[in-house]
Amino acid sequence: MPVGNIAPPSTIHAIKGVKIGITAAGVRYKNRDDLVVFELSPTAAVACVTTSNQCCAAPVLLVREHLAQLAANNSSPRYLLINTGNANAATGDEGHKRALQTCQALADKGAVESTQVLPFSTGVIGETINSEAIITGLDKCLAALGADNWLAAANAIRTTDTIPKLDSQQVQVADGITYHITGISKGAGMIRPNMATMLGFVATDAPIAQPLLQQILVELTNQSFNRITIDGDTSTNDCCVLIATGEDSSHVIDSEQHPHYAAIYEALKQVFLRLATLIVRDGEGATKFITVKVTGGKTTEDCCDVAYAVAHSPLVKTAFFASDPNWGRIVAAVGYSGAKNLDANLVSVKLDDVAICTRGQLDNSYSEAQGQAVMSRPEITIHIDLGMGSATDTVYTCDLSHEYVSINADYRS
Amino acid sequence: MPVGNIAPPSTIHAIKGVKIGITAAGVRYKNRDDLVVFELSPTAAVACVTTSNQCCAAPVLLVREHLAQLAANNSSPRYLLINTGNANAATGDEGHKRALQTCQALADKGAVESTQVLPFSTGVIGETINSEAIITGLDKCLAALGADNWLAAANAIRTTDTIPKLDSQQVQVADGITYHITGISKGAGMIRPNMATMLGFVATDAPIAQPLLQQILVELTNQSFNRITIDGDTSTNDCCVLIATGEDSSHVIDSEQHPHYAAIYEALKQVFLRLATLIVRDGEGATKFITVKVTGGKTTEDCCDVAYAVAHSPLVKTAFFASDPNWGRIVAAVGYSGAKNLDANLVSVKLDDVAICTRGQLDNSYSEAQGQAVMSRPEITIHIDLGMGSATDTVYTCDLSHEYVSINADYRS
Repeated sequence: MPVGNIAPPSTIHAIKGVKIGITAAGVRYKNRDDLVVFELSPTAAVACVTTSNQCCAAPVLLVREHLAQLAANNSSPRYLLINTGNANAATGDEGHKRALQTCQALADKGAVESTQVLPFSTGVIGETINSEAIITGLDKCLAALGADNWLAAANAIRTTDTIPKLDSQQVQVADGITYHITGISKGAGMIRPNMATMLGFVATDAPIAQPLLQQILVELTNQSFNRITIDGDTSTNDCCVLIATGEDSSHVIDSEQHPHYAAIYEALKQVFLRLATLIVRDGEGATKFITVKVTGGKTTEDCCDVAYAVAHSPLVKTAFFASDPNWGRIVAAVGYSGAKNLDANLVSVKLDDVAICTRGQLDNSYSEAQGQAVMSRPEITIHIDLGMGSATDTVYTCDLSHEYVSINADYRS
Repeated sequence: MPVGNIAPPSTIHAIKGVKIGITAAGVRYKNRDDLVVFELSPTAAVACVTTSNQCCAAPVLLVREHLAQLAANNSSPRYLLINTGNANAATGDEGHKRALQTCQALADKGAVESTQVLPFSTGVIGETINSEAIITGLDKCLAALGADNWLAAANAIRTTDTIPKLDSQQVQVADGITYHITGISKGAGMIRPNMATMLGFVATDAPIAQPLLQQILVELTNQSFNRITIDGDTSTNDCCVLIATGEDSSHVIDSEQHPHYAAIYEALKQVFLRLATLIVRDGEGATKFITVKVTGGKTTEDCCDVAYAVAHSPLVKTAFFASDPNWGRIVAAVGYSGAKNLDANLVSVKLDDVAICTRGQLDNSYSEAQGQAVMSRPEITIHIDLGMGSATDTVYTCDLSHEYVSINADYRS
């Protein structure tokens, strides 16, 4: 069961310049939506980040190749082609060939270059992808293209996800100028993204120039998808795409100094954080949503190392599952985090408002009853202060339950 | 249930110059042996390695202080004082003071300097240690001192360990010269040692000079205790001690060129490997013993990174628990291992004798039935060849089961 508020927003804004078509192509399973096509307007700017996994999937390699060729030709993507059921990873040359064939087929139907199609796959690793089913399904996807299919797309890209992940916001950046942002994501296991998550697609009708759009994507990914962990496994297929379709040339946002920049950046940030934390709330077997906030670091890197060590520790995560305030495990994880600037006698730990460990030892005011009470909450912030400086960082995670083991012992999508 | 052959050897050799006394001191629980004293002959050489956890326990800090002072005075340890039930970690100045008091009390009774006592603690983190119980228990330990108490000591240092961990060997290094080695270890969770494991004590009656003894300990630790992982959590209390009590001055082993060096090194190595792999066989919730052997690396470091990434992946470990040959998870872990020299198209993976992935993709000969058959074995070697060079490394681990979650959700020693 996902943790806390996971409902999609009541209003899902269509994004002018983005149409989405979905079908059940039978890539792996019959009778479930598993193929999604995004059609983008010719003037849309597109930014993309991909997994740092060195054994990355064929479609990820192809995304990078296509983006490089488009950049060289001053051209830009027109289609995103997404399948679930098969990750097309660890499939060698054959996987690459098949991914390329699906791009070519869609390019032919859309009368664009094959490099203008970006392919994304998610599902089981190491099996030959049914590219024939994908190619056959393209006509149905194209026939179904519409502006209001975001929720259906969020559902179609699910694997072990129990909920569709979607956010939608509008932001007024000036009198009479309102922009919209809608995005979807997927992921529930094999989650410790490193450059992006297991598929996220966000679009806005704001007119943001491509170089700035890429910069914004990298920054926001580092604050959202790159700050979550479920099991510490960085996927072979992580990708995140940010699309800006706005055509109002008198208001192009092309620098951080632009008067509309701050407002659209903040709105995008909220959407990214929501999409990333929805993945944690739906983490495989999750019963608790845990925010690991580290303050007082000498460097942000130290804070990030500490936050990830705690967020990733199976011992910390099982203690949270059991609502057992076994805070020594948190201190142990801080100690092995690899943070460069650390003094055990300066470390303090709070669970929400309850001070447990102050400057290296048990807080005088702490009682086990307080600890147990706070540990029973479904949403908890572990606040670790390193007492060394003013840097901070935050990572989001969930607990480790029997259900995680069950899901991953049973799963082959 | 521990995996495979975990029986202690039928003959446990006493080591001349080492006496062990054990008692139930009531450190945390009543009526279970929880206090162990090793008394060493005045001429024994002692080597020691300690955890790399920066939030290490008070006794670990004291071990380092005492060894530094002894080295400065050309003196050497006479007593090891080991308690279970409380790790005396994250206990600040008070913990340090209490650990020192126990050393002083034992030093007074033994008529040695307090620096000649090395303290070791294991158990729950973050609670004040009952040093009064330890001090009261010392007389009983000293009264019980004997040469044949190794098995009782192995039992007394257990926490979540389900079995005592002990090995004993003899080795003939030359005509008429036979030496003996006996050692014990403990640990079942919070195991990814980094410099040593959660308590290991090995003694030999071979006459090995101290500087060489320390070098041997570091080398062997790096091939044994530093090559195992259960949950990736490096403990605050890891320590490993190697003692050489031999007094035969005509045969002192003081360099790698000594004619007896190779034989005693090899015998010690077997004992270290046995003690380390016993920890994995008894890993919390373990149902399978997994050897991750990486060959073909450009550097040993790359091989170690890959082996640990695979051995540590919750997804790989749950797949082994389920006997599911979901080998894509192995490839994914190779990919995010951080190994510097890696080409996905050169990576091959075998499970025991079954080739699954050859140079980046599914092996032609592989069948799911073969995969399932090999995955069902209780002991499995994952052989990953990187196809880049001739370096190798090996890490030992176990699977991740429901039982691991149960044990760690329930445990506070």
